[in-house]
Amino acid sequence: MTTFAIGVDLGGTNLRIAAVDSTGKIVEKITTGTEVARGRDRVIDEMCDAIRDLTKKHHIGGRLQGIGVGVPGIIDLETGMLRASPNLPGWEEYPVHQEIERRLSTKVILENDANAAALGEKWLGAGAHVDDMCMITLGTGVGGGLVLHDRIWHGMLGMAGELGHINVNVDGPACGCGSHGCLEQYASALAVKRMAAEAVAAGHAPRLAKAMNEDPEFNAKVVYQIAAEGDEPAREVFHRVGTALGIAVAGLINVFNLPMYVIGGGVASAWDAFAPTMVETAKKHSYIYRLTAAPAAWHTQSENRATAAHKKTVITRAILGSDAGLIGAARLAMEKSS
Amino acid sequence: MTTFAIGVDLGGTNLRIAAVDSTGKIVEKITTGTEVARGRDRVIDEMCDAIRDLTKKHHIGGRLQGIGVGVPGIIDLETGMLRASPNLPGWEEYPVHQEIERRLSTKVILENDANAAALGEKWLGAGAHVDDMCMITLGTGVGGGLVLHDRIWHGMLGMAGELGHINVNVDGPACGCGSHGCLEQYASALAVKRMAAEAVAAGHAPRLAKAMNEDPEFNAKVVYQIAAEGDEPAREVFHRVGTALGIAVAGLINVFNLPMYVIGGGVASAWDAFAPTMVETAKKHSYIYRLTAAPAAWHTQSENRATAAHKKTVITRAILGSDAGLIGAARLAMEKSS
Repeated sequence: MTTFAIGVDLGGTNLRIAAVDSTGKIVEKITTGTEVARGRDRVIDEMCDAIRDLTKKHHIGGRLQGIGVGVPGIIDLETGMLRASPNLPGWEEYPVHQEIERRLSTKVILENDANAAALGEKWLGAGAHVDDMCMITLGTGVGGGLVLHDRIWHGMLGMAGELGHINVNVDGPACGCGSHGCLEQYASALAVKRMAAEAVAAGHAPRLAKAMNEDPEFNAKVVYQIAAEGDEPAREVFHRVGTALGIAVAGLINVFNLPMYVIGGGVASAWDAFAPTMVETAKKHSYIYRLTAAPAAWHTQSENRATAAHKKTVITRAILGSDAGLIGAARLAMEKSS
Repeated sequence: MTTFAIGVDLGGTNLRIAAVDSTGKIVEKITTGTEVARGRDRVIDEMCDAIRDLTKKHHIGGRLQGIGVGVPGIIDLETGMLRASPNLPGWEEYPVHQEIERRLSTKVILENDANAAALGEKWLGAGAHVDDMCMITLGTGVGGGLVLHDRIWHGMLGMAGELGHINVNVDGPACGCGSHGCLEQYASALAVKRMAAEAVAAGHAPRLAKAMNEDPEFNAKVVYQIAAEGDEPAREVFHRVGTALGIAVAGLINVFNLPMYVIGGGVASAWDAFAPTMVETAKKHSYIYRLTAAPAAWHTQSENRATAAHKKTVITRAILGSDAGLIGAARLAMEKSS
């Protein structure tokens, strides 16, 4: 290892920090709870302590190229302020960029977490063989990132890629963003849990009702396990996930005509439960997709390579899992220094 | 005039051909009916005759830089084939690029008509002072074009920018593209006419009913005139136009975070009837727009210049009218030759 970068993924639940070498290999990773309740200054202090520790440790083996930090929410890249951040309550209008740089006495690259994840998948994951792609990250909320001509598309202020707030049903449930029927209200982990609770409340989901009552950890993962066992109401929840994703992806295909749309984040683990509905719905809503859809057999990593050459549209799963954001954040720091 | 280019806008209703000088001034323009019914070969013949005439005539004054042709529909730019074209029935899978070049014995730039219009507005119209913009063209159908970093965003095959098929209501009317509730079903001239007819059929639009019965030319323009006179059912039609546009533009803002969204095409003449609803709806569905909306007073040409400097989001009217496509097509030919 001659050079390395630090990648940080600051989530509402976990804070992850990694030393990443120039090939994208994670040399060391630290994961801690974010403890949002203890306040933003405390979280930033802990993050900076961990960055310092990792830097010192790996400085012997190689030169530090830079530090990239992925943060959830709407960042104004010009001012380095978080303008909105539902998963980090109390961080709105906080000069997060400045606060990190002040503590570390060095330049830091700040990025939206889903943008960082998209860049990670583009570099070493599902999108490694295409120039342009977009990624939808299904986590607690739904994030998104666009990589156009190998670079994150930031837009005017760095706020681009809010794919979780594409409208998929004007009459749908209220969203934290002030709108109704955003993708996030159907395809996030919280939405899966809410839709399962709705099925229970409607009285026709005994298996889900039992799990809700008995399992204090009842969450999207449990709903998926029950769906995988064949329970129809649980399966229906994931059909709704797939329908919403299909409408959103169809819109993205109609707007961008990209070779690849990548679905990542924790809820993407339920791929087999929602993907068939998603693909079918996307076909219904996009004639460009109908004209250009890649054969189903291409949806594995090595076959994605065929996409770029054959000009077909692939909708596929992310590959890097929860490391995508760390790797992408580190990559940003490397790009900036080169 | 030392150099000039030929711009062509081949519509479902009109065929327009212009000689355009290097400053974007239209030196001469020919407009004829497209006479789609006479078949694609006849239309292409007439277009090529007119191109030859104009070229010969202006060749004395300046050197021809190239020929750009805007065509409605989904073009595969790699093969030069029209893959889908609802406004030019029978042109699907027609090698339009090859047929034009064969007749003229010269290279021609082929482009989607709404992409050409977006480039025209970017060059000399509403978007002259921003680097990135998108334009929605409300004509017989609804087209769209994205200009990112001063260039048309084509995507993988040239099919990008189909903004008329962004979904604004999953339960909405069937669209020619196979989907339901596309923007085109609410914001095109045909949609305005259909929504007026729906109001008449529902029995609560006497003023529209009278016009429909008496005016054989009853169309979107007539509906707008009646709305402008204060007729509530006619005004409601344009509220629906505005609501649909607001949802679509909000989605584009959330995805792209561009400085400018331009609304053009014939239906944009009804701006004052739909724009307030559009802006209000876009605010409801996009917190990025709420955070960054430009003051209403900026919505004129000279004030658009402030947009780029102040990083605000402007939703505004196109300026070049029906010449945008001609000018953009000519611009493409100039870019290619330089």
